[in-house]
Amino acid sequence: MTDFPRSLLTGYDSFMSGRYSGESQRYRTLAETGQKPHTLVVACCDSRAAPETIFDAGPGELFVIRNVANLVPPYEPDGQYHATSAALEYAVQVLKVRDIVVMGHGRCGGIQAALDPMDEPLSPGDFIGKWMGLLRPTAEQIPSTDVMTQSERQTALERVSIRNSIANLRTFPCVRILEEKGRMRVHGAWFDISTGELWIMDSKTGDFIRPTVELPVPTSA
Amino acid sequence: MTDFPRSLLTGYDSFMSGRYSGESQRYRTLAETGQKPHTLVVACCDSRAAPETIFDAGPGELFVIRNVANLVPPYEPDGQYHATSAALEYAVQVLKVRDIVVMGHGRCGGIQAALDPMDEPLSPGDFIGKWMGLLRPTAEQIPSTDVMTQSERQTALERVSIRNSIANLRTFPCVRILEEKGRMRVHGAWFDISTGELWIMDSKTGDFIRPTVELPVPTSA
Amino acid sequence: MTDFPRSLLTGYDSFMSGRYSGESQRYRTLAETGQKPHTLVVACCDSRAAPETIFDAGPGELFVIRNVANLVPPYEPDGQYHATSAALEYAVQVLKVRDIVVMGHGRCGGIQAALDPMDEPLSPGDFIGKWMGLLRPTAEQIPSTDVMTQSERQTALERVSIRNSIANLRTFPCVRILEEKGRMRVHGAWFDISTGELWIMDSKTGDFIRPTVELPVPTSA
Amino acid sequence: MTDFPRSLLTGYDSFMSGRYSGESQRYRTLAETGQKPHTLVVACCDSRAAPETIFDAGPGELFVIRNVANLVPPYEPDGQYHATSAALEYAVQVLKVRDIVVMGHGRCGGIQAALDPMDEPLSPGDFIGKWMGLLRPTAEQIPSTDVMTQSERQTALERVSIRNSIANLRTFPCVRILEEKGRMRVHGAWFDISTGELWIMDSKTGDFIRPTVELPVPTSA
Repeated sequence: MTDFPRSLLTGYDSFMSGRYSGESQRYRTLAETGQKPHTLVVACCDSRAAPETIFDAGPGELFVIRNVANLVPPYEPDGQYHATSAALEYAVQVLKVRDIVVMGHGRCGGIQAALDPMDEPLSPGDFIGKWMGLLRPTAEQIPSTDVMTQSERQTALERVSIRNSIANLRTFPCVRILEEKGRMRVHGAWFDISTGELWIMDSKTGDFIRPTVELPVPTSA
Repeated sequence: MTDFPRSLLTGYDSFMSGRYSGESQRYRTLAETGQKPHTLVVACCDSRAAPETIFDAGPGELFVIRNVANLVPPYEPDGQYHATSAALEYAVQVLKVRDIVVMGHGRCGGIQAALDPMDEPLSPGDFIGKWMGLLRPTAEQIPSTDVMTQSERQTALERVSIRNSIANLRTFPCVRILEEKGRMRVHGAWFDISTGELWIMDSKTGDFIRPTVELPVPTSA
Repeated sequence: MTDFPRSLLTGYDSFMSGRYSGESQRYRTLAETGQKPHTLVVACCDSRAAPETIFDAGPGELFVIRNVANLVPPYEPDGQYHATSAALEYAVQVLKVRDIVVMGHGRCGGIQAALDPMDEPLSPGDFIGKWMGLLRPTAEQIPSTDVMTQSERQTALERVSIRNSIANLRTFPCVRILEEKGRMRVHGAWFDISTGELWIMDSKTGDFIRPTVELPVPTSA
Repeated sequence: MTDFPRSLLTGYDSFMSGRYSGESQRYRTLAETGQKPHTLVVACCDSRAAPETIFDAGPGELFVIRNVANLVPPYEPDGQYHATSAALEYAVQVLKVRDIVVMGHGRCGGIQAALDPMDEPLSPGDFIGKWMGLLRPTAEQIPSTDVMTQSERQTALERVSIRNSIANLRTFPCVRILEEKGRMRVHGAWFDISTGELWIMDSKTGDFIRPTVELPVPTSA
């Protein structure tokens, strides 16, 4: 009958008989009272890095923006429409999230496109070219392959970009003011798709480190 | 130590000892070979409607754009940066997804803002106002509360907006051409947060119907 | 012999040997003591939506008005004859029903005629045009097919019309007074011919919801 | 939760698990293809005389008008709204029913009100008085209780009224023309609530007789 992807219908079936079945009351309550997520996550569209999966988050916990390479553009009150800024504004002003996490990940295709721009745009609109152009000034400062390996350049820009987005976040008056008042915290994180490792940005130095909490380490690969 | 949200660290711990532990080989392979998601989902940032949860999707399956109210703007090759168009272009041209699903949901705060715009913008940038302005001409055609209840107006605009986004999707030459060649399919879906019901858009009529014809009939009232 | 429709005679035969045979005493008692129906149902003439069938009601239970599109006109003490108002008055004042249910249904031909009036009246009397004209001011506020699908427009007006009829019911002094005294209750319901679903109007919001919270979740897609 | 009459919800439950469950395909088909009832029945609102019950009719068979005392008013193209004439027009012109049955019944409260009008109207609108006024000229010709018993007067007017409505039916041009062309048939019937007997009007003489077909007679009372 329907040409809706069969795998999604099967997955939905599994959701209904599994998770939803066990949490139906929570869904009902969330529908009635509205959402009150504690955290905004700015993540990448990448199919391997869904925040709800990585943080094992249930319904109502994370408000999630996903764009290519998890970028936050700078504050630009120019009358244009901005998907990311609108979602940021909504999360901060309406939902009053307490934490914002900019979460990057390894092997990011968008970061790769920023590092080594294609000769030809993908389409006359060149939307990826324009979008990753937000990172251009930064990307151009990453050393060439004469100096760093391709993998090192990629990881470097992935992390630089997270710091860049966090700096852009702070150009939004609402974020800056709330952070200064101690009512909001801004974080960076980076997920290694291959090993499953989560690296967290040290808020003072900007370095990415494995969390020093007493987490069990992955037991086998 | 770190001020990274404790609940996220706990969730990550659970992910590592649970899902990742069982799928580490899949993550490694996905890291090495790159992602090949079969479907692009355009979903809302809402914390109650994560596509990976609703479709019980594993790593590598869904490339996911999340913006407020799951909008696709029309094709505008104007040299500006467009988060959604860039991600769409990447999914179609680089990843070559076969299916695109625009997935809305009930009780959407963005749709509510489009129906009943706030008197005052949330910030001088008025990002939500501008973003939901993409729906303004349509929203103005929804009858007032003299005729339809607030809930009916909301559901109506949620569904109208999905059809609107699908129409906008088809203004992108790459989508239109691939769909005409039968190499891509475009779908609409709507998730009822309260009941967990998934409604799927009939591609011919635009109506939303539940996919489960063989549902058990209600057995008690 | 008689040219009375054969199918009705056969059906009557089946009634006599079945239902009547098992309930003959009840029929006799109802004949002797008179009817004491607890509920007035205002339903549509549609052959697919008989209230006794849908509510599996036995003799003596439901006093039933059936007109096209289950409309209740407003209170008009103008000296004309009014089939619906007369039956309403009889049910409330003589029979003293406790509940009134205005029951609409999907795919209603009358509602369709109100949404998209025919260019030509069906007859010089234009009785359907006049009757459905009771809904005209409301119907004109339903968005065009540019915005909502034909099916969505139809369902919307079906539900709006039920609320409209309930508002008209309350223009009858006898209904208003008894309801205020807590001696009568007024309800809306909507029957989906295709799926058999019954939706009930929430008396506070006017929304239509399925009464069966404890439904089994869909088990297969 | 809902204050919807519990007995109706229970009845609906029984319908869904019983009749609907066995006829769901028929309902679906009727929803998709639209109704094609073979017969219009003009019946009384009385809770003891539902046509679907008496004729054991399934979904899609009977288009049913129900007003007090199953009256058909004369053709009056006066620009007013007429519930009964509108439904008649719809059944004949749109649905193209082949048969029309005016079905009266014993112990009809409306007929009783026409025989012995109340001194005081039931309400300032006097809707029942006006409605049954359609029968006044006829009712005044029924002999007084000096001559006929009250029960005889009642049965007499019930039958006279059926013939009267049939005569009124034929004032509608659409009915008269189709009947003359042999494409429509008009019938009278009278149901005895107490015994369950169905009496059918002889189309030539106007007499009411028990059908002479080989129906099994009621086996026990």
